[in-house]
Amino acid sequence: MSRYWSSIVSKLEPYVPGEQPKVSNLIKLNTNENPYGPAPSVLAALLEETTDTLRLYPDPNSDVLKCAIADNFKIKTEQVFVGNGSDEVLAHVFQALLKHELPILFPDITYSFYPVYCGLYQVEYATVPLTDSYAINLQDYVQANGGIIFPNPNAPTGCGLPLTAITGLLQNNTESVVVVDEAYIDFGGESAVSLINQFPNLLVIQTLSKSRSLAGLRVGFAVGDAKLIEALERVKNSFNSYPLDRLAIAGAVAAIQDKAYFDVTRNKIIATRDKLAKNLTALGFEVLPSQANFLFVRHSERDAAKLSQALRQESIIVRHLAHQRINQFLRITIGTENECERLVEVLEQVLG
Amino acid sequence: MSRYWSSIVSKLEPYVPGEQPKVSNLIKLNTNENPYGPAPSVLAALLEETTDTLRLYPDPNSDVLKCAIADNFKIKTEQVFVGNGSDEVLAHVFQALLKHELPILFPDITYSFYPVYCGLYQVEYATVPLTDSYAINLQDYVQANGGIIFPNPNAPTGCGLPLTAITGLLQNNTESVVVVDEAYIDFGGESAVSLINQFPNLLVIQTLSKSRSLAGLRVGFAVGDAKLIEALERVKNSFNSYPLDRLAIAGAVAAIQDKAYFDVTRNKIIATRDKLAKNLTALGFEVLPSQANFLFVRHSERDAAKLSQALRQESIIVRHLAHQRINQFLRITIGTENECERLVEVLEQVLG
Repeated sequence: MSRYWSSIVSKLEPYVPGEQPKVSNLIKLNTNENPYGPAPSVLAALLEETTDTLRLYPDPNSDVLKCAIADNFKIKTEQVFVGNGSDEVLAHVFQALLKHELPILFPDITYSFYPVYCGLYQVEYATVPLTDSYAINLQDYVQANGGIIFPNPNAPTGCGLPLTAITGLLQNNTESVVVVDEAYIDFGGESAVSLINQFPNLLVIQTLSKSRSLAGLRVGFAVGDAKLIEALERVKNSFNSYPLDRLAIAGAVAAIQDKAYFDVTRNKIIATRDKLAKNLTALGFEVLPSQANFLFVRHSERDAAKLSQALRQESIIVRHLAHQRINQFLRITIGTENECERLVEVLEQVLG
Repeated sequence: MSRYWSSIVSKLEPYVPGEQPKVSNLIKLNTNENPYGPAPSVLAALLEETTDTLRLYPDPNSDVLKCAIADNFKIKTEQVFVGNGSDEVLAHVFQALLKHELPILFPDITYSFYPVYCGLYQVEYATVPLTDSYAINLQDYVQANGGIIFPNPNAPTGCGLPLTAITGLLQNNTESVVVVDEAYIDFGGESAVSLINQFPNLLVIQTLSKSRSLAGLRVGFAVGDAKLIEALERVKNSFNSYPLDRLAIAGAVAAIQDKAYFDVTRNKIIATRDKLAKNLTALGFEVLPSQANFLFVRHSERDAAKLSQALRQESIIVRHLAHQRINQFLRITIGTENECERLVEVLEQVLG
């Protein structure tokens, strides 16, 4: 606290990201990164852009990236907004599209940055409980609201929603914006991008951090009706003209265009996930059905915090979240085949 | 306008950055970029970082970069904040440190993003006119205020303030934050960084876009008392955990550490500026005294907008700003020796 701080600052409860340990030799299954590096075509594009032209500002509108994303989804460039990771995109969404008189709605168990954004922009919110099986029931969201946001698949559960459920919500909720946060959609979920021409209040958010192996490059985007995108552009252009640097733009374009590499790596992760789920089930874990690049699991007899510590002693990091309703769960990122085998091996030892 | 927009959105008047033309073969003297590329050591650091590790999130705190900046200024890392260009840093400053009951103060002629941030965060402001010779007189700022911000040297005039004037203001203004925006300080100004241990309400902002030739990489920073930095961190961590990507961090560290290249290039620019100022004066231009990498000039007999158009026909772009008080001025970025010679040649023709 300081007399120089704006009044809002001391009330903020900042987001705490998963640990980024500075030592190597760890099996890092705590922040849902892709175990495979970016496509060779992405590294080549980055090398090509590493030149004297870095002295020049980037295109403030990132037009080539918007075009690549629009081509990928067969939509128009004015239906695309890009930002410095989907976190920055989400921040602008909360300020530009979710601040209204009525509270917005999101799940009680979800991405824990949502209430942080609400604090930053003083957006009222109400949480809607997941079902007893930790699923989102979109019928519970049909009520007066200033906006609705949920991840699909949800984090940290990994549970996905069918497109029919999202369509049903959109048919019943036409007066406020519905944001589907698809950070993990490419690992088996059904994307709502196909619905944006039908519903002018639908905004879909994706990231290159997970399925495109580019968490280190910070690129995310939103797609939706041009009027929603215009609101985001107005806020972005009142905040920072150039959130995407020249390298991020070049790498992201190459990543979007390299569909072959994208399919190979995500399919490997899906296969590893399904194998790991079977192995963990055999070890006595309850494994929630996952459409993401992580599993959300709990053991019937072992405390989650203690299991997490035991894994850490063997140089394996997973994520344990403190929220009361899920504090007996562990969120485990899908690593390589070898990493997941090592995880199972260590768990076998720990569980005796 | 759309019913889905938050109420603030339609009232915003977004910042319009200088044009980034998509054709080459232009002499681009319109956005104050450095005519020399980044240091070879920077390009080497970027190449080294272009690896599979881009799959991993960056360090959310950019600790190595904070250390490099702290070492450079002989200050503590907790006195350093980093962001995605100084524009992002400034945005956080307006929200975290400049939003109070009293209006903030800045010059009537200055960086035109300041009133845009005020619109975004609903910060009240009053402008203080430059003197008749287009200088900032800091004695005019000794009045009740919610904060003070000015660039030194000022943009778009290029005129600098001596450190004694800034010290005088800080002695007389202890109840609100004073932000010195030093985007152009390395081209001959006196930095206020040396005062941060003395004045807990002083925040100094710098960028790597100009003197470090990295406009394309988007890195800026703020230095000041740890309590001011804490406010910025709280806002940043409620907005986006990882605004600096892995490549930006690596390139910025190398740029800060390469003092030899930094000195060579900025000295070349200073020499070119002084020569260009003489040549333009000889052509009948009034040239404001510049401590920046640009000149702010007007011709006694020729309309600025028409001069700008005439230069453009010869593939030279300069910046003409519409603000009434300065609409007879042109802002001309210092290019290479050859570029500036070509500019003078074309102006000789145009002026007959």
